[in-house]
Amino acid sequence: MFHATKGPVRVRFADQPLSVATAVLSLALAATPVHAQEQQSVEERLEALENRLADVEPRATGDEGFSFNTYARSGLLLNGDLQSAPGGPYLTPAGSVGGAVGRLGNEPDTYLEAILNYRQVAENGTKSHYRLMIADSTTSSNDWTAGDGALNVRQAYVQFSDLASFTGIFADASIWAGKRFDRDLDFDIHWLDSDIVFLGGLGAGIYDVRFADGVTSNFSLYGRSFSEFPADPESFSDEEHSTDNLILTANNYFGNVEWLISGMKAQENDLRVVGGVTEAAETGVHTMLAYHGDSFFGLSDGNFKAAVIHGQGLGAETKNIGADGDLHEDAVSTRLAVYGTTYLSETWRVAPAILAETSKDRYIKGDEYQWLTFNARLAQELTANFEMQYEASWQTMDLTTLGYQGRNDVDGYYSRFTVAPTFKPQVGGFWNRPEIRVFASYSTWDDELEGYAAGDALGADRDFESSQWTFGTQMEVWF
Amino acid sequence: MFHATKGPVRVRFADQPLSVATAVLSLALAATPVHAQEQQSVEERLEALENRLADVEPRATGDEGFSFNTYARSGLLLNGDLQSAPGGPYLTPAGSVGGAVGRLGNEPDTYLEAILNYRQVAENGTKSHYRLMIADSTTSSNDWTAGDGALNVRQAYVQFSDLASFTGIFADASIWAGKRFDRDLDFDIHWLDSDIVFLGGLGAGIYDVRFADGVTSNFSLYGRSFSEFPADPESFSDEEHSTDNLILTANNYFGNVEWLISGMKAQENDLRVVGGVTEAAETGVHTMLAYHGDSFFGLSDGNFKAAVIHGQGLGAETKNIGADGDLHEDAVSTRLAVYGTTYLSETWRVAPAILAETSKDRYIKGDEYQWLTFNARLAQELTANFEMQYEASWQTMDLTTLGYQGRNDVDGYYSRFTVAPTFKPQVGGFWNRPEIRVFASYSTWDDELEGYAAGDALGADRDFESSQWTFGTQMEVWF
Amino acid sequence: MFHATKGPVRVRFADQPLSVATAVLSLALAATPVHAQEQQSVEERLEALENRLADVEPRATGDEGFSFNTYARSGLLLNGDLQSAPGGPYLTPAGSVGGAVGRLGNEPDTYLEAILNYRQVAENGTKSHYRLMIADSTTSSNDWTAGDGALNVRQAYVQFSDLASFTGIFADASIWAGKRFDRDLDFDIHWLDSDIVFLGGLGAGIYDVRFADGVTSNFSLYGRSFSEFPADPESFSDEEHSTDNLILTANNYFGNVEWLISGMKAQENDLRVVGGVTEAAETGVHTMLAYHGDSFFGLSDGNFKAAVIHGQGLGAETKNIGADGDLHEDAVSTRLAVYGTTYLSETWRVAPAILAETSKDRYIKGDEYQWLTFNARLAQELTANFEMQYEASWQTMDLTTLGYQGRNDVDGYYSRFTVAPTFKPQVGGFWNRPEIRVFASYSTWDDELEGYAAGDALGADRDFESSQWTFGTQMEVWF
Repeated sequence: MFHATKGPVRVRFADQPLSVATAVLSLALAATPVHAQEQQSVEERLEALENRLADVEPRATGDEGFSFNTYARSGLLLNGDLQSAPGGPYLTPAGSVGGAVGRLGNEPDTYLEAILNYRQVAENGTKSHYRLMIADSTTSSNDWTAGDGALNVRQAYVQFSDLASFTGIFADASIWAGKRFDRDLDFDIHWLDSDIVFLGGLGAGIYDVRFADGVTSNFSLYGRSFSEFPADPESFSDEEHSTDNLILTANNYFGNVEWLISGMKAQENDLRVVGGVTEAAETGVHTMLAYHGDSFFGLSDGNFKAAVIHGQGLGAETKNIGADGDLHEDAVSTRLAVYGTTYLSETWRVAPAILAETSKDRYIKGDEYQWLTFNARLAQELTANFEMQYEASWQTMDLTTLGYQGRNDVDGYYSRFTVAPTFKPQVGGFWNRPEIRVFASYSTWDDELEGYAAGDALGADRDFESSQWTFGTQMEVWF
Repeated sequence: MFHATKGPVRVRFADQPLSVATAVLSLALAATPVHAQEQQSVEERLEALENRLADVEPRATGDEGFSFNTYARSGLLLNGDLQSAPGGPYLTPAGSVGGAVGRLGNEPDTYLEAILNYRQVAENGTKSHYRLMIADSTTSSNDWTAGDGALNVRQAYVQFSDLASFTGIFADASIWAGKRFDRDLDFDIHWLDSDIVFLGGLGAGIYDVRFADGVTSNFSLYGRSFSEFPADPESFSDEEHSTDNLILTANNYFGNVEWLISGMKAQENDLRVVGGVTEAAETGVHTMLAYHGDSFFGLSDGNFKAAVIHGQGLGAETKNIGADGDLHEDAVSTRLAVYGTTYLSETWRVAPAILAETSKDRYIKGDEYQWLTFNARLAQELTANFEMQYEASWQTMDLTTLGYQGRNDVDGYYSRFTVAPTFKPQVGGFWNRPEIRVFASYSTWDDELEGYAAGDALGADRDFESSQWTFGTQMEVWF
Repeated sequence: MFHATKGPVRVRFADQPLSVATAVLSLALAATPVHAQEQQSVEERLEALENRLADVEPRATGDEGFSFNTYARSGLLLNGDLQSAPGGPYLTPAGSVGGAVGRLGNEPDTYLEAILNYRQVAENGTKSHYRLMIADSTTSSNDWTAGDGALNVRQAYVQFSDLASFTGIFADASIWAGKRFDRDLDFDIHWLDSDIVFLGGLGAGIYDVRFADGVTSNFSLYGRSFSEFPADPESFSDEEHSTDNLILTANNYFGNVEWLISGMKAQENDLRVVGGVTEAAETGVHTMLAYHGDSFFGLSDGNFKAAVIHGQGLGAETKNIGADGDLHEDAVSTRLAVYGTTYLSETWRVAPAILAETSKDRYIKGDEYQWLTFNARLAQELTANFEMQYEASWQTMDLTTLGYQGRNDVDGYYSRFTVAPTFKPQVGGFWNRPEIRVFASYSTWDDELEGYAAGDALGADRDFESSQWTFGTQMEVWF
């Protein structure tokens, strides 16, 4: 598989009547040049090797040419009858409006992102980066999922940096166009599988416009498709309509503080029929104030992030910016997200998190959605390759839906506790992957939550009741 | 593509007053062997390094092992209401029979080809190349397109070259089998997104049979699937039928002149029902005479290509050889394709193109399709990373369809002018990519064209009328 | 991410009694330090190069970072009318229950597996391997198969080996989790495209637990999805049901002997309706005794494999362990698989194979399936790049279906003989790929076989009758 094409001419040492006679006999007028020549040859060969290796190295590291990145998880999630159980962080009624609970182990799917990168450096020094992300999601355990899978392209964009002709406040700027996840706007609470904000779609933008030391801004235009929604039959003969939501964003950093502001407009989305009326939002505004802490809330080593998010109209989907076209023109949402990680001792580490939202007039005038999740993941590192992980989630919710999508009002709590013996190549911190885990979970919830929606995890399955045990195995990897 | 980052500091030999004193003064019989041994060690280590590096280099460049290639574009195309507009080079009625117009910016889709190569060199020197192309196309702006996308495999073939046992006229020949785009038969007029000819499918062939200096030929057999077409109900109980179109091709080069001749047969395609009758072609012939110029029409530096294509029966689809099974047994088409590129000054470059076709008895006896497109792309290089691009298209068409596929006769013109400020890693020529562009276009057309077909770009959309402005942003990349 | 495995032995400069005599004898106080410095510089540069190259090499070979593997085939299979013919090794009635015949050339599909690997080595030496396999299958010859293709993810798993903290019988063990083909349980009779056993699905396991020299075991838990099967209407309101088949496996090696034992359970699969009754198996057991020979049956150089497989209930699908949910609770199957490869002379090689099964009460109480296939592939190596390949298959079958899936009883034989002139980069053995072949086949069969099932290869096509000629071209590659 590995057949060498031959390198430059190789002078074999044996061919060189090196030094003995020369050194002894020469008075050195002749010897010196010979010696020098041969030495020069070493010098030249070293320099050639160094140059050739310098060409190869960026290809090996992915700084130039192809490189591969991944996020993937795949697991078996079973109930006590040894059958697939519902799961995932969005299984509760609050999950339908973003209220995630802890996910350790309890995910029923194989989800993966295969990221193919290609980087180039122009002669003038300008760098370019093409990124393609192919993703798939399925809950089938089978090895042939042509009918169940969902392979699709989530990202395809180019980004330029170190632009030779950019100066001043643009000297460090990058520009991009295509379909992508925003570079900065998809930071998450990993344990809830919930981004704090997520901005994705098709557009163009500029990163790292530097106004002063520590003061930088990103500006972008993203489009998203609102496809085939029911529309006012008086305006449209076919009763189905599509439009685009265009989102203008300024994301600004002042040291550790991030202030994001977005405005959006989806022309004719006000003709969308939701709950029998045409009161859907046509415009929206969304803003976030966040702090990226480099300690555990100032108490110990670690990190923390805290964010308050507020949105109105189409901006009232606080996480997935501009992705929900059903939002009411008067919709108002406010979300709080906080998490941190730290070590409690040499071997114990902990990551608490809070995610909460209150939302009014969300889909139907007068509705109200309130939920709050506490989550904590705890781990004890036991050997070079093994640790015990624990996770506790508690969620309370009070959802007044006014019948949106056939959903009923519910008011109650959900809680889950998970133990997961975990293998990894090297323990140490919350971000080391891959992990191979086995797990067992105990969940309880108010029976009332089962009345929310006929088809959801808690409502559907006669075998899935409060005081539920689930267990299984899962791998998770990123690089 | 392969720009070296510099290695560690290199001390140049010339800076070192090497050994003069040593060589002159030492008697040193003992010293010499030690010196020799140590020199040998350096020699051996150098040689080992050179050998190891020679093994690594072809892996880094993709000459052996894996490499990655891509074509991709992704853009947001909007009308004045900030909603997605129809677009692409085939949006006019003539587009339905191959009449493309200029595409600069005005494309509504994310289209990409991810090409995975694997090259091997056998011990006897024979090279093999496996190529897999996965492609996707969607007009959705969303980042999850499992329901809208079209991921599929367009190529999967192997090709052998430098065959150890091939001699004589086959000494330089390559052979291949599998599913592929023909190596030579997909050269295009880039600005129209139209191949001059395109041959793709599943088969086998041989390239570069060399009869004399400058006289080479390629021979191939391609199969294509004609799937589930309506067939004569008297012959088939299920009224649907499938068959294969087999295409034998000889593609011959005499210096800059290329002469391509193809014959094809699709058994029982004459039982296909088109326009209520069974007169579809069962056989066809297709030929092209082309010139690949290495100047701008002899006038200045640059390049040009000119081709005349003629086809009959199943060969009357002049571009996509053998891909259209609806063609009438008497169908006759002739197409002209010309383009060139040159620099007008240090910073201005231009690429004019003509594409035209006349076609008779194409789908229904007596129909007639005539269209002609003038296109010119112009660019002014302004900085290392920025240029202004301009494109003008003018198309005239006269289509007499006799009701084929419910289409109406139209006779008229279409024109479009586009301005596109464009960023790229390094300006210089029409083929440098990636590009990030923003653009604005103005289009006009005869209202009559809107009556061609209910579902097409000009006919369908009440918001898309002549004197149309469109604008947006787009990336385009290949490597 | 970039952990260097150490390169070849590095002789440190300090270990070298460099220039002792030189240093002693020379008066040259100035010359000596210069010399030392300069020699040290070469030494340092060599060492730096060796270190840097040792970092790059595992990236080039795929021992670390990304690597790419593939299996692919793509071919055109035609009948005498130049139309696509049915084909593949499973085209006979026995094929519906696993009875493959030889496949040389005669495959109608483009099937490919693109395998993306990423390997990492942790600082503590633990290795991890992420593998993603994307596969596709289509019988369309076209280059755009978005409507015909079947792109899907067949594998996505991580595996850890060389675990720093594993000792004793686990010292050489590997652990894994995710969706995969079992590492050991997919060895096949290549010429029949039939695994001897195949185990795939979603789960976790451990390989290479070493109890003694030559005595190792693998243990695994695999889940598979039984999806949307018709279920007892008295138990389920929607008459469709899904469940999971969980398979516990111990695969044990005693030198060349392999003993595999698997138990499985699919909760509520006994409520599945097959042939009008609910007698499907809920549990199963499957076992295999195999011998992996390192000669051609002790007669000459080469290899052979022989296996006897027995299964009951859900284990009665002897090849695809646990993949068939329709099996009857009393189902019993026994399969024999034998093949070997050897050279008959310098240039002739042969590979005979036998695959046979008897199965009772398989789907419906009282049914009976018996079939036996003889196959032999023969090749004559003629030049560095060319060989003639021949294959003969003979199959006899006696299938008593009791109407399962509308199938009728048949009793008869099928035989096929194929000649395939074959090009390859380097001839030599049965496993060298890629190959480019053209082929012609002659097949005969008992007319009775055409009555088995209306939709199958022998039954469906009026143009596909006994005494059939087929021919075409095909590539096959793996690496």
